Amino acid sequence: MPRRKAQDDKHWATQPEQTKSLGSLRWAIAEGYIPEGSTGPEPEMLSHETACVLNANDQEAHIRLTVYFSDEEPIGPYLVTIPPRRTRHLRFNNLSDPAPIPRGKDYSSVIESDVPIVVQHTRLDSRQAANALLSTIAFAAD
Amino acid sequence: MPRRKAQDDKHWATQPEQTKSLGSLRWAIAEGYIPEGSTGPEPEMLSHETACVLNANDQEAHIRLTVYFSDEEPIGPYLVTIPPRRTRHLRFNNLSDPAPIPRGKDYSSVIESDVPIVVQHTRLDSRQAANALLSTIAFAAD
Amino acid sequence: MPRRKAQDDKHWATQPEQTKSLGSLRWAIAEGYIPEGSTGPEPEMLSHETACVLNANDQEAHIRLTVYFSDEEPIGPYLVTIPPRRTRHLRFNNLSDPAPIPRGKDYSSVIESDVPIVVQHTRLDSRQAANALLSTIAFAAD
Amino acid sequence: MPRRKAQDDKHWATQPEQTKSLGSLRWAIAEGYIPEGSTGPEPEMLSHETACVLNANDQEAHIRLTVYFSDEEPIGPYLVTIPPRRTRHLRFNNLSDPAPIPRGKDYSSVIESDVPIVVQHTRLDSRQAANALLSTIAFAAD
Repeated sequence: MPRRKAQDDKHWATQPEQTKSLGSLRWAIAEGYIPEGSTGPEPEMLSHETACVLNANDQEAHIRLTVYFSDEEPIGPYLVTIPPRRTRHLRFNNLSDPAPIPRGKDYSSVIESDVPIVVQHTRLDSRQAANALLSTIAFAAD
Repeated sequence: MPRRKAQDDKHWATQPEQTKSLGSLRWAIAEGYIPEGSTGPEPEMLSHETACVLNANDQEAHIRLTVYFSDEEPIGPYLVTIPPRRTRHLRFNNLSDPAPIPRGKDYSSVIESDVPIVVQHTRLDSRQAANALLSTIAFAAD
Repeated sequence: MPRRKAQDDKHWATQPEQTKSLGSLRWAIAEGYIPEGSTGPEPEMLSHETACVLNANDQEAHIRLTVYFSDEEPIGPYLVTIPPRRTRHLRFNNLSDPAPIPRGKDYSSVIESDVPIVVQHTRLDSRQAANALLSTIAFAAD
Repeated sequence: MPRRKAQDDKHWATQPEQTKSLGSLRWAIAEGYIPEGSTGPEPEMLSHETACVLNANDQEAHIRLTVYFSDEEPIGPYLVTIPPRRTRHLRFNNLSDPAPIPRGKDYSSVIESDVPIVVQHTRLDSRQAANALLSTIAFAAD
């Protein structure tokens, strides 16, 4: 299906390679809250909170996630490995080791990696009849 | 439940420590508006506007929040202390000293701290039958 | 109502002044679209698209807004003055000089100022029975 | 309709030109997911995922978009040309060359350009009775 013009190919051929060093080693998500109820078919419509992590490198990314609360010491690290050239949409709902994230409780999270990654935060809230969504790029700390 | 492989532990052990200097000293949220009505059970479904603040430091964070309007001088500072390694999801609805934030009125806010923090802005709008959500990382000013 | 402890006041008194140089001189919002229909009471529930602009300076901000389209030359500049220490939530729906923004058509916008400002983008979409909201910090171009 | 005061024109006339070098050459969107169902009239209410790209330059932008998955090698590049001073709201739903994006599957994307661009990510999810929206500025990688 490559129907591109030769002239266009020339432009794109001169662009830099993309895969190296895309992102940051430390990220923070200040908002965090897993709603307690849901409406609609699961698992798609289950209320959830996600950290989407892109590893565009040619090496594995070893991720450490730490969760902060308002009234107790942080929990973590949660350890996750992402293969080279892969994305992982981490659902906070599913984290269990060293401990599950409590529902209906405010938290924040910090995500560290040994290679540069990109992190985006998304929530689906289906507590009422229709879905609500939020998303933001996380804070790149370095 | 630590079922990690020794090989993985090696990767994570070599990562830098995360807790120091994560964030920025000054943040701004240009959007601000507390809706006047709500639908659904309170306090979870009460329409509200939040500044989520993460203090990942080993010291207290002393926060000054100033609120700007379209037609009058700014109000503030609102003073908040966040303990070491804690998050605080500040509801603008609940701020009262030096003055409550007016409902149904446009505003912006600036948040300053004596140690680096991370700030994210979230609104739940439940004026109509279903929730609507928005969220964004705030602007890191320095 | 200042019921703060003297110890706390000491911390905050040593913080830097906030009002100068907060923000950036150029901002871009790549997303732009004014929905054509609305549900619910106006003007609060009218579908709209907003650029929230904070001028935390002690001087006026002179703003130039330019709107880009997919299929014709940009329109602008739209000129707006924001007084010192004020916010302005600019509704794209209300811009009229040099021309109104077409409804139901993709656009982007660039906002320039002669003093640093902070810009956040918000949309309320009330075309279906419940509101939907989106918001993001704009891109700070310098 | 230019009813501006001469004094104001002076302020704006001294502002820098905006059109050059606005943006970044590499962007990443870590979140990506095209919902499988929709409610409401199409094409406006069709569930979709968009990368809004602003080319504020006086030259064409040659864009390369690469899509990353959780369980297979990346697909791309998708090649797109954006004329000078134009915006393009790219719907991931419509990408077909070299391959369509699978529905109901997590992905991330990287967008590279030979001139600076600005990228914002938006999703409309109409799987339930009311719309849900999310949007965020993408991550500017350099």
